[in-house]
Amino acid sequence: MKIALAQLNYHVGNFESNTAKIIDTIKTARTQGADLVVFAELCICGYPSRDFLEFQEYIALGEVCAAQIAAECTNIACIIGIPTENFNAEGKDLNNSAYFIADGKVQAVVNKALLPNYDVFDEYRYFEPSTSFSCIDFKGHKIALTICEDLWNTIENPLYVTRPMDELIKEKPDVMINIAASPFAYNHDEERIAILSDNARRYNLPLFYVNHVGAQTELIFDGGSLVFDNQGNVVDELPYFKETITYYDLKDNAEIELQQPATIPAMRQNDIEQIYDGLILGIRDYFYKSGFKSAILGLSGGIDSAVVCALAADALGPENVMAVLLPSRFSSDHSLTDAEDLVKNLGCKSETVAIRSITEAFETALHPQFEGLPFNIAEENIQSRSRAVLLMAMCNKFGYILLNTSNKSEAAVGYGTLYGDMCGGISVLGDVYKTQVYQLAEYINRDKEIIPINSIIKPPSAELRPDQKDSDSLPEYDILDSILKEYLENRMSSTGIIKLGYDEPVVRRVIRLVNLAEHKRYQTPPILRVSPKAFGMGRRMPIVGKYLS
Amino acid sequence: MKIALAQLNYHVGNFESNTAKIIDTIKTARTQGADLVVFAELCICGYPSRDFLEFQEYIALGEVCAAQIAAECTNIACIIGIPTENFNAEGKDLNNSAYFIADGKVQAVVNKALLPNYDVFDEYRYFEPSTSFSCIDFKGHKIALTICEDLWNTIENPLYVTRPMDELIKEKPDVMINIAASPFAYNHDEERIAILSDNARRYNLPLFYVNHVGAQTELIFDGGSLVFDNQGNVVDELPYFKETITYYDLKDNAEIELQQPATIPAMRQNDIEQIYDGLILGIRDYFYKSGFKSAILGLSGGIDSAVVCALAADALGPENVMAVLLPSRFSSDHSLTDAEDLVKNLGCKSETVAIRSITEAFETALHPQFEGLPFNIAEENIQSRSRAVLLMAMCNKFGYILLNTSNKSEAAVGYGTLYGDMCGGISVLGDVYKTQVYQLAEYINRDKEIIPINSIIKPPSAELRPDQKDSDSLPEYDILDSILKEYLENRMSSTGIIKLGYDEPVVRRVIRLVNLAEHKRYQTPPILRVSPKAFGMGRRMPIVGKYLS
Repeated sequence: MKIALAQLNYHVGNFESNTAKIIDTIKTARTQGADLVVFAELCICGYPSRDFLEFQEYIALGEVCAAQIAAECTNIACIIGIPTENFNAEGKDLNNSAYFIADGKVQAVVNKALLPNYDVFDEYRYFEPSTSFSCIDFKGHKIALTICEDLWNTIENPLYVTRPMDELIKEKPDVMINIAASPFAYNHDEERIAILSDNARRYNLPLFYVNHVGAQTELIFDGGSLVFDNQGNVVDELPYFKETITYYDLKDNAEIELQQPATIPAMRQNDIEQIYDGLILGIRDYFYKSGFKSAILGLSGGIDSAVVCALAADALGPENVMAVLLPSRFSSDHSLTDAEDLVKNLGCKSETVAIRSITEAFETALHPQFEGLPFNIAEENIQSRSRAVLLMAMCNKFGYILLNTSNKSEAAVGYGTLYGDMCGGISVLGDVYKTQVYQLAEYINRDKEIIPINSIIKPPSAELRPDQKDSDSLPEYDILDSILKEYLENRMSSTGIIKLGYDEPVVRRVIRLVNLAEHKRYQTPPILRVSPKAFGMGRRMPIVGKYLS
Repeated sequence: MKIALAQLNYHVGNFESNTAKIIDTIKTARTQGADLVVFAELCICGYPSRDFLEFQEYIALGEVCAAQIAAECTNIACIIGIPTENFNAEGKDLNNSAYFIADGKVQAVVNKALLPNYDVFDEYRYFEPSTSFSCIDFKGHKIALTICEDLWNTIENPLYVTRPMDELIKEKPDVMINIAASPFAYNHDEERIAILSDNARRYNLPLFYVNHVGAQTELIFDGGSLVFDNQGNVVDELPYFKETITYYDLKDNAEIELQQPATIPAMRQNDIEQIYDGLILGIRDYFYKSGFKSAILGLSGGIDSAVVCALAADALGPENVMAVLLPSRFSSDHSLTDAEDLVKNLGCKSETVAIRSITEAFETALHPQFEGLPFNIAEENIQSRSRAVLLMAMCNKFGYILLNTSNKSEAAVGYGTLYGDMCGGISVLGDVYKTQVYQLAEYINRDKEIIPINSIIKPPSAELRPDQKDSDSLPEYDILDSILKEYLENRMSSTGIIKLGYDEPVVRRVIRLVNLAEHKRYQTPPILRVSPKAFGMGRRMPIVGKYLS
């Protein structure tokens, strides 16, 4: 049986483009002699469709497209992912399904049994879990078809009370196919390989696994689809962050013959390389899928906006990036020259708009109210917010999308101005700690100096008052980031983190800052997710809650 | 058996204040001769605790507090709601539990079986559903104790495959107790009474039902706890929107004797009265639970900000409300006088800050970029954003929280300026359609003219360009709101709404506007929820999705 794996970039809700892409791929696969082409989970509507799934018309559109796809399936079979109506009276209205289509019609329906409902996942919000299991017979093979999480109920920490493969194995299948929507995090590829390999070995079956590639708002799908032999060895690993179609011949003795050279990487990408590639895809898809092509950002001369500018130039082309220098009376000379050097190195567009006359207009207007009161965070924020108003005015006038340049460390402790530097259509670095931003800068400079070295080595500063430095208000970033990682990613509380050896007052203060900044993060742009725990849809916190605050 | 119902206002994560309140109530109830005092679902930590539940320390704190409460339970029993560790190896880490406490210790644990995971609810994110059921014996009675949703698997549209009472009834209980966390929506009280009454009648048992009261960020709990006889008749209905403790004697013949006059309302509050009371509680708890007492808002002379100002004055006291008049060159004279009249009627504080010099400073600064281009939305938004910068500066200087004044109709179609009039700590009217805002204004004016009649009768306008009116860009609000309600609350798609008789181009345009404004709503403040479908945590939509847009 010749199997094609289609690792494609879909667009949520765009049934027309998704279906066209699926049909094109079926046609191509047929010319290549494939018997079966496998698409990803919920490919017909894109993932995650979120509450669009609550519209009956949305579900009906999926069926219309499935019928169009079925009509193309002559002399070739395919597996697609689709949300379907649950015809049982009891339970949720929908199932998360896979259609096995051959000879022009749907021959078998498999429903997902294990529904992830943690972090960014809300599948039990929409779908009823399956409780019945059966294999699919095709061309003398018996296929155990499962959907993503169905293979993820680990032995060590079982999150679910059932394990679909334990049922399917009773029918003695000779191959497993798993269609998935498994989003990127910089450490997720190795975990994915380990868990899937464990399944192949445990059930002594070859395994074909197809993932999405492409970004949907904040969620980036990295591809990296996989083929394992029945010993759990990786036979092929599809490229990361790009669309690919590959072909395999599954022999009757369970051997797998590749129809093209394997693309297993000789060396795994390190975290920073993966984050870089993920962010590029995230920016690009956010713009293109929204129908925009040009970005704007405020360039301060600091490292965060420099890294965002370099990423945007790579993702969208430097000609589609407008960098705006917005000096205030507290901006240092080197900030301007560093920003200008970056613009020159990247070849992007730039403008300079001084904000002094604007902040003075605000201060004059507020003089009756503020008279006699000392300069404080009110005046600092007026600067940051004036910049945002200018950048948004240019968005409104010229059709840019503003890129947010806050990093995860700042977003965590609320070191940023709401409606000021926290503005933007999409946050590029909101899931990247400051220490990682430095690593990204070094990676960007790996061949030549793109980000001016001065932007990298100078002490970080918001430059909202004379001689201000981040370290006046915050611990050093290596300490801060370590504490944040324990709290955010490992859900360790203050007591636990202090036991690891961190200074008690620092830990308590950092965690208190994180919890008090919840109201700010609530109103920030979607953040491209590159870690196992990003701010946004995957981390849901009360605002008026009183805990560690 | 003498039963006390404790309808209390908890604070999410504030174990200390919640526990103190529970212990105080136990002491009071004991002096009143109660045998059993019933508290609400998850009262120990507040509802919804959201991802705080993922911290082991948070769960451990609950147990510490439960032990303190148990120590108080001599000569009285109580039922509390608490998140507990799931000791089974398989499944989610937690259960949503009720402790039955007597003689100083936990005598029985009941775990919730039906976990709401729709709209604002995420319970399957944290909890494993119970699959075993047993009653509690106490003082010669057999209590069927369930938790909220456990009684909500309706016959007509069963969302779950089990029904806990069908199991518990086998043990022949003589009373049902249900502890709940059932948030307010203007039509929810009657639905709640109907469903609970149906349970009492079906199982032929008296039913005691205890709800939360108080707001947690955007979610408002309205109280309205209930007592039914075994025919499903309402025996008592506790007050809405306030804390109350009531006492009942449950006789051996299942008769219920009230120990105080019943508070069943002679006439149900209409939608607008309920919304008014809900918003007052929502504002008050947002401020007090955050440790703030004073609000600021921009007063335009229009109806939305007038209604918010009146609500804030009622909720926080007029002395804690600062109304700021921010006229531009496009503000009409009557706008200023209408705003001034309102300030006088309410007795709140006010300031006037003209924005003309500020918008001119922006336009001058942007002159090199904007030269020769016509006045458009860029300049309109500069006005709105300049106001936001001024209001936020006053927040930063004086410690106010900014109240957002956008209504649901505007929020739906994106008729508002991100980082401008869409700013604020909490949105008061974001779940109130414009047509309902008029009704609120009339209700506020029921005894005398508080909101100037001119603010009510003049055509709505954003006043961001000469002679602008909302109706230039939008359908009339009665049409718009009807279409929005079908789309948002009834999840009807364009085709369905057009079939109801609405004009096709209008419907398609409105729905397209709603979907295109998703990126704006993502960054708006939490919205006090008063309807069955509010923007925010209960409505989760993709931003780059392409559906009906």
